[in-house]
Amino acid sequence: MLSFESVLYIAGMVGVAVFAISGALAAAEEKLDILSFVLFATVTGIGGGTVRDLFLNVPQVFWVADPFYLYTTIAAAVITYFFSHLLVSISRSLLWMDAAGLALFSVLGTAKAMAMNVDPVVAIAMGMITPTFGSIVRDILLGHKLVLLEPEIYVTAALLGGGGYFILRGVLAIDEVTAILLAVAAAFMLRAAAMIWDLRLPKLKDPINP
Amino acid sequence: MLSFESVLYIAGMVGVAVFAISGALAAAEEKLDILSFVLFATVTGIGGGTVRDLFLNVPQVFWVADPFYLYTTIAAAVITYFFSHLLVSISRSLLWMDAAGLALFSVLGTAKAMAMNVDPVVAIAMGMITPTFGSIVRDILLGHKLVLLEPEIYVTAALLGGGGYFILRGVLAIDEVTAILLAVAAAFMLRAAAMIWDLRLPKLKDPINP
Amino acid sequence: MLSFESVLYIAGMVGVAVFAISGALAAAEEKLDILSFVLFATVTGIGGGTVRDLFLNVPQVFWVADPFYLYTTIAAAVITYFFSHLLVSISRSLLWMDAAGLALFSVLGTAKAMAMNVDPVVAIAMGMITPTFGSIVRDILLGHKLVLLEPEIYVTAALLGGGGYFILRGVLAIDEVTAILLAVAAAFMLRAAAMIWDLRLPKLKDPINP
Repeated sequence: MLSFESVLYIAGMVGVAVFAISGALAAAEEKLDILSFVLFATVTGIGGGTVRDLFLNVPQVFWVADPFYLYTTIAAAVITYFFSHLLVSISRSLLWMDAAGLALFSVLGTAKAMAMNVDPVVAIAMGMITPTFGSIVRDILLGHKLVLLEPEIYVTAALLGGGGYFILRGVLAIDEVTAILLAVAAAFMLRAAAMIWDLRLPKLKDPINP
Repeated sequence: MLSFESVLYIAGMVGVAVFAISGALAAAEEKLDILSFVLFATVTGIGGGTVRDLFLNVPQVFWVADPFYLYTTIAAAVITYFFSHLLVSISRSLLWMDAAGLALFSVLGTAKAMAMNVDPVVAIAMGMITPTFGSIVRDILLGHKLVLLEPEIYVTAALLGGGGYFILRGVLAIDEVTAILLAVAAAFMLRAAAMIWDLRLPKLKDPINP
Repeated sequence: MLSFESVLYIAGMVGVAVFAISGALAAAEEKLDILSFVLFATVTGIGGGTVRDLFLNVPQVFWVADPFYLYTTIAAAVITYFFSHLLVSISRSLLWMDAAGLALFSVLGTAKAMAMNVDPVVAIAMGMITPTFGSIVRDILLGHKLVLLEPEIYVTAALLGGGGYFILRGVLAIDEVTAILLAVAAAFMLRAAAMIWDLRLPKLKDPINP
């Protein structure tokens, strides 16, 4: 039987693949060449974790230490290049897998930071950076408005994942496996609820130019 | 009585808060949600020092080592979210505090680099990066033209702060406290003069398309 | 007589200067001030190698370890500021030197990564990042569409340089000097052919909106 670590590893790789496909689909919309597909898939798939690792100053950035992440984003780019019409047709399913990736990476980002004994707020910030900064860099490279600035309970779900994990594991000292499962479930359900009922954070009213 | 180190630390925290407020006010202009306020306040408040620390490869990025910087940018974001109209009404005062922050961070950025025995030009470059790259990242995230490319003696003041400190401390071997005070004062006065008399660097005439 | 290392070092410095001039010429087109010329020359000249060094987590980023790179980009900026019309008149020659810089940095980037025993795909990725990410950051700072997304066999030449070096050195175990010379020549010739015959990668047909 698979150990919990193996399940986490496989789930993480699937999450990177889904993020990478969303990056490659952005390249498809711009009708770029295949190397640009690889660039966007890679930046979107592993960009957030890379920024987290640079801020935490880990000995080796995760995809340098384990190149299988890079193989995954390259494979996702190539598959999207040749079968982008199929991927567009399952884009609704991809959104659900993206929500799962968001939930997972917010928790794993916080867990990685907590293992380095940083302050809780720093650890939760790392959980918010991990699933989000990849799409920020993708949108900057494309010259697009950042989708992340839409108040659609995406970053909020990452906050719940990272914050929830910190409370369960760091404060309540619940065991690792349960804490991860509960925190991922909470973040996923919040994001799922936001997708189903189109929930949004309130935007600032206009106190500057009333 | 407060030691010089304590005064510097408090002044630095106030500078980060002022930079963070300028980032949060940019989020207010776009009428974003509160988490986006936190993102822009944090990026603008501590982005420049983060880039400096990554380039210097310090053991721990300053806000990971001391999370109070992160608390400060989050608090600045929340305060700006609820009281942005008040902050807009004191925006002139904030500009003066921003000039003080610019002066202080250019000197402290250079001092931190010099303590690592890097080349003087590298150290002065770090002093120019520290107070400026936060606003660069903020403008990139917003898709705005970089305010830093305006020739309004902002980067020049940072050059004077870092270069002045290097000459006073590295060449003339003046004591640390005096060197910091003089260099900060020089950079602040140059920026203040530029603000009062609207001084600007000459832009390139047009030799390419004459 | 000059050693091979010295020739490589000088060639690398010339390559950085050419990349820096291309950055400074972008500042000239926007008619910016001299400090902005320095910013763009530096970002374009050493940005790609900096990103590579951050990802590889080297003890010291290359231009902090050897500040002569920084002197070179600053000198390139100053020369471009005062003589931009001359540089525009030799822009065709600069394009050829840029092709040589591209070829050289793709090979040296891969060689630096291979010396750290990373995975071959990671090493080749570093060779693709080194000559290209500087221009990406320049275009982002300017708010321009990325020239790198044009399918004009630029990134492809970097892939050939890095991949070719890996095969020659890592697989066939050819001696260092020969492997560098052959891989640089291959990448340069591919880029030169693309410039002469205007070769391009195929863009994605439009399967999404047929």
